[in-house]
Amino acid sequence: MPCQNQPLNNLTTGQEHNLTKHVRFAANRNSSGPEVPSAGALDDVRKLCVNVPNGGGLGPEVLNLGPQLRLLPLNNQILELQTIIRDKSTSRGDFVFCADRLIRLVVEEGLNQLPYSECTVTTPTGHLYEGVKFERGNCGVSIMRSGEAMEQGLRDCCRSIRIGKILIQSDEETQKAKVYYAKFPPDISRRKVLLMYPILSSGNTVIEAVKVLIEHGLQPKHIILLSLFSTPHGSKAILQEFPDITLLSTELHPVAPTHFGQKYFGTE
Amino acid sequence: MPCQNQPLNNLTTGQEHNLTKHVRFAANRNSSGPEVPSAGALDDVRKLCVNVPNGGGLGPEVLNLGPQLRLLPLNNQILELQTIIRDKSTSRGDFVFCADRLIRLVVEEGLNQLPYSECTVTTPTGHLYEGVKFERGNCGVSIMRSGEAMEQGLRDCCRSIRIGKILIQSDEETQKAKVYYAKFPPDISRRKVLLMYPILSSGNTVIEAVKVLIEHGLQPKHIILLSLFSTPHGSKAILQEFPDITLLSTELHPVAPTHFGQKYFGTE
Amino acid sequence: MPCQNQPLNNLTTGQEHNLTKHVRFAANRNSSGPEVPSAGALDDVRKLCVNVPNGGGLGPEVLNLGPQLRLLPLNNQILELQTIIRDKSTSRGDFVFCADRLIRLVVEEGLNQLPYSECTVTTPTGHLYEGVKFERGNCGVSIMRSGEAMEQGLRDCCRSIRIGKILIQSDEETQKAKVYYAKFPPDISRRKVLLMYPILSSGNTVIEAVKVLIEHGLQPKHIILLSLFSTPHGSKAILQEFPDITLLSTELHPVAPTHFGQKYFGTE
Amino acid sequence: MPCQNQPLNNLTTGQEHNLTKHVRFAANRNSSGPEVPSAGALDDVRKLCVNVPNGGGLGPEVLNLGPQLRLLPLNNQILELQTIIRDKSTSRGDFVFCADRLIRLVVEEGLNQLPYSECTVTTPTGHLYEGVKFERGNCGVSIMRSGEAMEQGLRDCCRSIRIGKILIQSDEETQKAKVYYAKFPPDISRRKVLLMYPILSSGNTVIEAVKVLIEHGLQPKHIILLSLFSTPHGSKAILQEFPDITLLSTELHPVAPTHFGQKYFGTE
Repeated sequence: MPCQNQPLNNLTTGQEHNLTKHVRFAANRNSSGPEVPSAGALDDVRKLCVNVPNGGGLGPEVLNLGPQLRLLPLNNQILELQTIIRDKSTSRGDFVFCADRLIRLVVEEGLNQLPYSECTVTTPTGHLYEGVKFERGNCGVSIMRSGEAMEQGLRDCCRSIRIGKILIQSDEETQKAKVYYAKFPPDISRRKVLLMYPILSSGNTVIEAVKVLIEHGLQPKHIILLSLFSTPHGSKAILQEFPDITLLSTELHPVAPTHFGQKYFGTE
Repeated sequence: MPCQNQPLNNLTTGQEHNLTKHVRFAANRNSSGPEVPSAGALDDVRKLCVNVPNGGGLGPEVLNLGPQLRLLPLNNQILELQTIIRDKSTSRGDFVFCADRLIRLVVEEGLNQLPYSECTVTTPTGHLYEGVKFERGNCGVSIMRSGEAMEQGLRDCCRSIRIGKILIQSDEETQKAKVYYAKFPPDISRRKVLLMYPILSSGNTVIEAVKVLIEHGLQPKHIILLSLFSTPHGSKAILQEFPDITLLSTELHPVAPTHFGQKYFGTE
Repeated sequence: MPCQNQPLNNLTTGQEHNLTKHVRFAANRNSSGPEVPSAGALDDVRKLCVNVPNGGGLGPEVLNLGPQLRLLPLNNQILELQTIIRDKSTSRGDFVFCADRLIRLVVEEGLNQLPYSECTVTTPTGHLYEGVKFERGNCGVSIMRSGEAMEQGLRDCCRSIRIGKILIQSDEETQKAKVYYAKFPPDISRRKVLLMYPILSSGNTVIEAVKVLIEHGLQPKHIILLSLFSTPHGSKAILQEFPDITLLSTELHPVAPTHFGQKYFGTE
Repeated sequence: MPCQNQPLNNLTTGQEHNLTKHVRFAANRNSSGPEVPSAGALDDVRKLCVNVPNGGGLGPEVLNLGPQLRLLPLNNQILELQTIIRDKSTSRGDFVFCADRLIRLVVEEGLNQLPYSECTVTTPTGHLYEGVKFERGNCGVSIMRSGEAMEQGLRDCCRSIRIGKILIQSDEETQKAKVYYAKFPPDISRRKVLLMYPILSSGNTVIEAVKVLIEHGLQPKHIILLSLFSTPHGSKAILQEFPDITLLSTELHPVAPTHFGQKYFGTE
């Protein structure tokens, strides 16, 4: 009965995690490419969802990522957006439009991870209404260059949010990841940070970015990493290094669409 | 174990429906206003979610609305948006911004109700990917005037969708609801229709609008009604009259923020 | 020396009006359709611009519309947008995108017609800067249905502006224009009104709409009519009836793209 | 009679250039801060516009920038946007909203500088219409970080345009400007480039960016530099180094609002 633990916001966490991950992997080990998933077979997946004895055969490195990894509830619209983004025949206009939609959904879910408090407001008819109010003191940080594609989506949901930026590249001589640029909102150490990077592949760039944030006084538990597509390998690397950050994605799959940033900006 | 039946898209349907509805009612029968809900007490709600023997004490008129009523999974962001929209002290700029966010979320879920098929695409690296593709032949129809507030949100998610419109008002002499204006996309009888009306109060206006659509040859099962706030009474009236339409909302609550349209457009 | 009178905002008014109008007519009386203009031949037009002895042969009904008719300065981007909107092979996605761009440009110019006052602000470095500040107390009113296409453009430039609406149709029995719906912001009689209607053909609908506004206590001199495409005939009819309103358009031409509203909303 | 030469697109070029520049300087040498202009006194400016014997007393370094410097026609809306951007008491929400509006106006004018050709299209009623069509093969390049604020405005007017990026910073050791990041669309040497940088102060960063573009095979004459606020000094430095690029701005004034980027992104 894994779904009993499902939190209100329908994010998959903890024990039932393996089920949803299975959804994202969906089968096609024997299809055209060993590393490319079948996203189809939804009916099969639905059946699996209520009865997967051992996590669908996924190895332990997938199953132990813990509650800090959160996947958006998969639905067919998200699956369509993922499909269009993966399809090499998609025009750039459609690509950007669909990417922006997916980004907004991830941002909405990311905002939902932030702390809130209950509050009481008065309606126009004079009644009291007990609602909630999210705390202020958040900001966004995009990791160049693909993370910049998520900035507008963040603004679309959070009008005046401050947005910092990090550029990390391999040093030409040493080949080590090096921070070339970092500009953050003031007092970042006291903020919650929505760290934006759409494609988590190896996780190395994100790890370097988190290190920079920590150097600026931020605690990892105040970082919510927003991604669109993540690999199990990269997610594991990040969460092993920083078990307190929250990692949000729409998919956990060994093959990420690494052409994302170049296609979004047209620099392919 | 109601959640076992929960479909992939996390919409609440069928048997477990009463649980989520309970979330939206959330308690406060004994608070300041008898008809104004407490949206707080989320932790209590979470507990209730896995163990509500009889639907939380809700009366039968709430419990029998059936699977055609679908509520967005409640989360704290949605709750905050609902709070801001209800708060009489909200500025019109903030009101419109938050309403637009909530509208986009409802539209995304509404699009998710449309028919799709599986498809296979090729990725830039040459692999096959089994995804899904939504069918074409949809359109939007807004019911004036508040429904028009949802048109831009529909465009934001569905770039080139056709949008029709209906104006229904009480006849000055007979006081009966009368259709003053109706303009639809061509071949509407062969389309799926996203019918937009943000506040379902008595349900009368929507019922008249559906009748007009039926007169144009549309089958009720091809109508997805998108609303933001719905009353149990109005939802029941609509679904009793047209049990085949799909009704989507973010909330089922006896008091709807009926000032929505006037505040959105500034004509209060 | 017609350009000496040109106001700062580069709108064409008064004496030099005939020149720019000629630009919008541009020549091709002898082309495929007598009422369809050539927008090309820009170089010729440029030459004409500084030396048109008699208004380019335009009849007196065109030349005497007076300073209340204001045309956006024609440039090639506007000409391209007009071309794309007129082209029957334009996809609806492109049509809406280009219409929205043209609408924003007209809205920006419309806002520029509103009253302002000088003000002094302090810069972050502590200096005083003498700038201007537009007065509050404006609103938009769209004339259904095509005028609704301009509402989002108005919001894009004027975040929280109130927007009213008028529906005018022919009475089924008497064939007379009749007001079926009118909803305005409060205190409209004390506001400046940006009246939105993209295609001015006969001008009849606008004339009825202005009458409704006057019945609500508005003075015509407080109306700025925003249109995209206007005919000389329709413009003359409107300005003869209400010589004090300001009429803004991107084009004065005998053939207006009357399919605009239906194509924008996809109800053709 | 300088205005007789004014081109169709109302940009100020060549001989009458000194007049409009004077508008942007507007008087207040003797006001609170010697380097802060008065943007007011519009009536005086209007008078000056038709009769400025010697360029309004501006020194030769201002008057000789030549036709490659183009200023948007000043109007009161633009003046208001400039005022709001300069005002230190402006909220970040308003700042971003107004900056985005000003950016879109500059982008529209920038697009208007691109090459086009005449074309004939068929209208829905079957007539031929002679219009214009802009050539393809353009792209945007933003100079970090403030130039990134202009990317969305470019997309708002040019849906699928490719956007490259350059990061230039002072080397920590040598203090020389150094290129830390450059990513361009393919075949940039064959494209027209809209180079985006909102605040031209010394001009040094832009000069380095242009050098990088030239290293990638681009000819300076194919660069249109889009800026919001420019100093005479910086504009002169850029155009002396690269006399063939086109420089577009809304203002030529010795004091530029250098807080722009930090306020836009909230990293002040």
